[in-house]
Amino acid sequence: MDLTHIEHIGIAVKSLEEAIPYYENVLGLKCYKIEEVADQKVKTAFFRIGETKIELLESTSPEGPVAQFIEKRGEGVHHIAFATSSVKDCLAKAEAEGLRLIDKAPRKGAEGLNIAFLHPKSTMGVLTEFCEKGE
Amino acid sequence: MDLTHIEHIGIAVKSLEEAIPYYENVLGLKCYKIEEVADQKVKTAFFRIGETKIELLESTSPEGPVAQFIEKRGEGVHHIAFATSSVKDCLAKAEAEGLRLIDKAPRKGAEGLNIAFLHPKSTMGVLTEFCEKGE
Repeated sequence: MDLTHIEHIGIAVKSLEEAIPYYENVLGLKCYKIEEVADQKVKTAFFRIGETKIELLESTSPEGPVAQFIEKRGEGVHHIAFATSSVKDCLAKAEAEGLRLIDKAPRKGAEGLNIAFLHPKSTMGVLTEFCEKGE
Repeated sequence: MDLTHIEHIGIAVKSLEEAIPYYENVLGLKCYKIEEVADQKVKTAFFRIGETKIELLESTSPEGPVAQFIEKRGEGVHHIAFATSSVKDCLAKAEAEGLRLIDKAPRKGAEGLNIAFLHPKSTMGVLTEFCEKGE
């Protein structure tokens, strides 16, 4: 795998309305976009810090994966996303190593990226995402 | 606060011996140092990715904070550390905003950094560290 940097850190929060002022007014980061990702049942808020983004995730449904995460574990870091030039190659390597893939092939994620997830059962508890720039 | 980048992501693991091969052989990162931080009861393994480090944390005692974290929540992301030029200023700002500080003043952490933590109860579930380069 040619992982170049941490593309973003996904953080599950109960309420963007409550969380954004903390990230803006206390940490001094700037929310540059709010985007809904319908198929993941989340509303996301993005902040840049260095080469990494922070992606706050609020569930839009009690059945959504982020709502379920918060119910089980409380608010907190939900996933880590690594930037790569080829999500496909990362998935092939992960599969060859016997890891459990959530996505067998890249799909479209927030910000127009091609993304895929590995299951945290295979990665010592870290829900792991690979991201590459879309065309 | 003048947070410049994600200094590191701390990840609680049961065993460095089990986790390091995953980070090296699957993700392709290189462990450049293993360091024990006695007062935190952890053994840490460091990897660089872009401007960020990944810091794996294995508890050296069943009573240590990382062992307790794993008992409660399982393995996974333990904390996020932001790089700053002044931990002291970050703490002053956090205190002024009514956040709960774990450290009232900077102390020495791994890699010779001056560090301080905010309590996750005040930060929507994210154990938050500030780091500045030591002299």
